[in-house]
Amino acid sequence: MAKSGKIPKATITRLSIYYRQLELLEFDGYRMVSSENLAWLCQVNSAQVRKDLGYFGEFGVRGVGYDVIDLQVHIKRILAVNRDWNLGIAGIGNLGSALLQHQNLWERGFRCIAAFDNDSSKIGKTALGGVRIIDIKDLKQAVKDLNIEIGVITTPASAAQTVADLFLKAKVSALLNFSPTRISVPESCLVEHIDFTVKLDMISYELHHEIGTKKTTNSF
Amino acid sequence: MAKSGKIPKATITRLSIYYRQLELLEFDGYRMVSSENLAWLCQVNSAQVRKDLGYFGEFGVRGVGYDVIDLQVHIKRILAVNRDWNLGIAGIGNLGSALLQHQNLWERGFRCIAAFDNDSSKIGKTALGGVRIIDIKDLKQAVKDLNIEIGVITTPASAAQTVADLFLKAKVSALLNFSPTRISVPESCLVEHIDFTVKLDMISYELHHEIGTKKTTNSF
Repeated sequence: MAKSGKIPKATITRLSIYYRQLELLEFDGYRMVSSENLAWLCQVNSAQVRKDLGYFGEFGVRGVGYDVIDLQVHIKRILAVNRDWNLGIAGIGNLGSALLQHQNLWERGFRCIAAFDNDSSKIGKTALGGVRIIDIKDLKQAVKDLNIEIGVITTPASAAQTVADLFLKAKVSALLNFSPTRISVPESCLVEHIDFTVKLDMISYELHHEIGTKKTTNSF
Repeated sequence: MAKSGKIPKATITRLSIYYRQLELLEFDGYRMVSSENLAWLCQVNSAQVRKDLGYFGEFGVRGVGYDVIDLQVHIKRILAVNRDWNLGIAGIGNLGSALLQHQNLWERGFRCIAAFDNDSSKIGKTALGGVRIIDIKDLKQAVKDLNIEIGVITTPASAAQTVADLFLKAKVSALLNFSPTRISVPESCLVEHIDFTVKLDMISYELHHEIGTKKTTNSF
């Protein structure tokens, strides 16, 4: 689909952010948006917007801009979020529970359809979001039965590698790791890591260095 | 502190990521690291590492690399995370509770010292992490009394703007918004937004486009 071979990872993240702003523009009733305005909303420059989209085709009309709805369709196709993905969450503490009932995940097609824990007081109970909590020992069978493609790790750091290994044995295609630790996986498995404190480092830097200057951002 | 005026936001995010890899290198017993190896660990190229650090000074030794401990000290100072920051969390559901007991936040100096909610069954109770839950109506006084600098929003989307307005009236310096909605703030307030689904979009893209190729990443 892409015109050139390797697309920068940052481009993919920005497409995701452009998409969210296009949704908001549509909600606000806009039909067209210029690359300048989309860039401004996403805190990048307009050449970057055109370059990022240019990897995948010609989507704008010169002098007019982008169709707000059409461009969403294109980006959804590029990101392959025009389909649903099945997620299994391991570690049903507060964070796992928050994800299970996170409306935004479902709305975006990331279906949290399985919940795993090793706590016998939780196993068999219905978690928030209506999913029954499965014994983590039965993870492999459940991943197969439910066609889980993405494993989400919300365990304490001490359990993260063990859980990652279980997901790998069950042959999930990717892991999303919320635990504050490194996990080792073979090269055949994709891992993304979410660390809230990276955003807080950004806030710390901005507050320290830019107090008194313009500092509104609404980045993702 | 910076040699030039405006530092790209992406540079600040990468410094945060370099710092986390340097911690891991130190933990593993490394004393020195080349820009090539640090770049490889952080999934960027070595010129980028040198450029990012170059905004702030000369930290490496030519032909040798960076001192793993010294560079952590420099980055902590640049990011202003060589001090503690006081956080108040509004919305003590599952996500708010997860943050209150998130060991990693405290270890990095982001002290969640206040918890706010509007649910009378929660107010006055002790939340996870040992903080007493304060009536959100008393947010302004608590922010003043406890010197809260950063407001964290973990409410449902429908309450996010109201809570943001309360934090703004209480004169916090920055907001970290976990709710899946836009919030409007004056330019004098910094806002960062965390949307888990941006990482899932990345996974979706990678799974769709790069199945069968090398796809291990461990980015933040």
